Amino acid sequence: MDFAIAEPIRAAIAQHCDAGEFNALPYANDVLAHAFAARMRARFDWAVDTQRIHAFGDVVQGLYASVMAFSDPEDGVIVMTPTYAPLRDAVLRLERRLLPLPMRDDGGRYTFDVDDLDALLSGGARLLLLCHPHNPTGRVFTHEELTSIAERAIAHDLIVVSDEIHADLVFAEQTYRPFASLGPEIAGRTVTLSSASKSFNLSGLRCALAHFGSAALRQRFEQRVPSALLGDPTPLGVHATVAAWSEGQAWLDAARAQLAACRARLAAQLAARLPEIRWHPPDATYFAWLDCEALQLDMPASEFFRSAARVALSPGEAFDTHADRFVRLNFATSDVLLDAIVERMALALGRVG
Amino acid sequence: MDFAIAEPIRAAIAQHCDAGEFNALPYANDVLAHAFAARMRARFDWAVDTQRIHAFGDVVQGLYASVMAFSDPEDGVIVMTPTYAPLRDAVLRLERRLLPLPMRDDGGRYTFDVDDLDALLSGGARLLLLCHPHNPTGRVFTHEELTSIAERAIAHDLIVVSDEIHADLVFAEQTYRPFASLGPEIAGRTVTLSSASKSFNLSGLRCALAHFGSAALRQRFEQRVPSALLGDPTPLGVHATVAAWSEGQAWLDAARAQLAACRARLAAQLAARLPEIRWHPPDATYFAWLDCEALQLDMPASEFFRSAARVALSPGEAFDTHADRFVRLNFATSDVLLDAIVERMALALGRVG
Repeated sequence: MDFAIAEPIRAAIAQHCDAGEFNALPYANDVLAHAFAARMRARFDWAVDTQRIHAFGDVVQGLYASVMAFSDPEDGVIVMTPTYAPLRDAVLRLERRLLPLPMRDDGGRYTFDVDDLDALLSGGARLLLLCHPHNPTGRVFTHEELTSIAERAIAHDLIVVSDEIHADLVFAEQTYRPFASLGPEIAGRTVTLSSASKSFNLSGLRCALAHFGSAALRQRFEQRVPSALLGDPTPLGVHATVAAWSEGQAWLDAARAQLAACRARLAAQLAARLPEIRWHPPDATYFAWLDCEALQLDMPASEFFRSAARVALSPGEAFDTHADRFVRLNFATSDVLLDAIVERMALALGRVG
Repeated sequence: MDFAIAEPIRAAIAQHCDAGEFNALPYANDVLAHAFAARMRARFDWAVDTQRIHAFGDVVQGLYASVMAFSDPEDGVIVMTPTYAPLRDAVLRLERRLLPLPMRDDGGRYTFDVDDLDALLSGGARLLLLCHPHNPTGRVFTHEELTSIAERAIAHDLIVVSDEIHADLVFAEQTYRPFASLGPEIAGRTVTLSSASKSFNLSGLRCALAHFGSAALRQRFEQRVPSALLGDPTPLGVHATVAAWSEGQAWLDAARAQLAACRARLAAQLAARLPEIRWHPPDATYFAWLDCEALQLDMPASEFFRSAARVALSPGEAFDTHADRFVRLNFATSDVLLDAIVERMALALGRVG
């Protein structure tokens, strides 16, 4: 996001740096676990056991480690497509079988079809990697959608790894619930991955965590993946995260309001200048997943816009190998840049300004 | 070390924090690789290929990942004992066979016996984990010692992983050479682990690297251990490390002079107050490896000094399960504290002040 970080975080970082102590510190895991538990209780009335939290540097480490811990090579792993690439990459890189569950455009939103999910389950999946809110479509799954996944996970003895890194970037009109908070039975087979890094612009400080819905899940994770291989979060990252979660709400509310305004502005600009691009404004995140099929470009859409418009958009094929007519646009920027992005895209398509 | 960090590092951290950008940045690996190569060239006339460097958060990650990459479960891995615990732990945790090579007190220093090494090699070792300078004994291995290892590694097709994190804390009278710089043949089977974290008090910023002596070693490392599992170093850690390596020499020279003074003070105090403790002042590091056998304590030495003297020393058994009569003392502190440590130890043993 092209936003300055929250003042309480800046102050926490400055205080830590002024103290001049840059060695590793003990208790980082405990400090982070208590901050996460307090936040989950306050925001979602979700009681989190601080003994079931394992902290490390980033959510992608948690994804890879979870795939290692809860599946074996050749096992089937369900991933909704399009997907944030590391979910797919973790499956392929670790030599599991990728079972793609397509997110289909139902006219009003992107969603998965439970019949597709059932078909994958009958093929012997062991793990489902959820991204909730979903990147790149920005969907916040409804209670009904989440329940349909949870019921099947329980019926088919599936472990669910839920990347919820965008949970703080849900727009005001939406209701988000952590997947594991649906109930104790599904919690017992869910690993939740979280971090303040996306919503508070802190990824370089390296601080993230996994919450395990049962002691057995944590034990298996730590048995299969030595914690020394992942490494600890940084003390600075822990301090910044605690500041974000305990004192950053006003900044976050303002950031979300700003993102909602960006989303509205993008919608107006696209409608005016590029109405052929299909999209559904996201429920969460600062991403617009743009279907450029109707533009009938003779190359991947991202390539076209990069070369002809000098606009860098994330290539659709990074999220789904078949989606080269799509691009993902990051709208967490200024009005001036947002307008310039759409204008350049329109001009590249020969639309006179 | 109880020393304030170097001014150029403090300034680099402050500058980075003032810029207010805390997201992950690209090129961290390249920036670090070039800084490391420049330093190795300048200090040891060692030409390092920047394409053979993989950066991550800490040296222990590199140890675990190297054991995973260059051996299989049940393979034999040679580790000198006593040892910095993570070397031994990586072997045991990853279900390799630990082949301990004892460091023996030859009257003037701790060293290994090449006959012991030959016996281990005939037992089918695949990997040797070197710690050079050696923790906890503080030995800087001589050219002869290093060559005896290198010759055998080549003859027995061994990979050597050399943890050289204390390379900057070698005392002025000693000559240290990176193990991989002995020659191209041994370099081709050596992984060197390095970081500014110990010598510049920066471990909490998480920045370390592995240098691979051949492209094949790097390829195998990255094939066996997904880089996403290890995660990147922090941008702040990279900036601080570059500042340390390019502008930190004056501070480092002063720190080493200070450590040499601490070492001399400790030697004088021990000689005066606890002459029964056997030790060899270290060639490098800020550690004293103290043999308390002659004190005839009826409990592990660290336990005795913790309970009777209220002095916290690292327990010998953390470095070697049989070494509970040893303790490791960190002497990187003020004269006042150093004197108090020895005085409390002496008083606990009934020595009147």
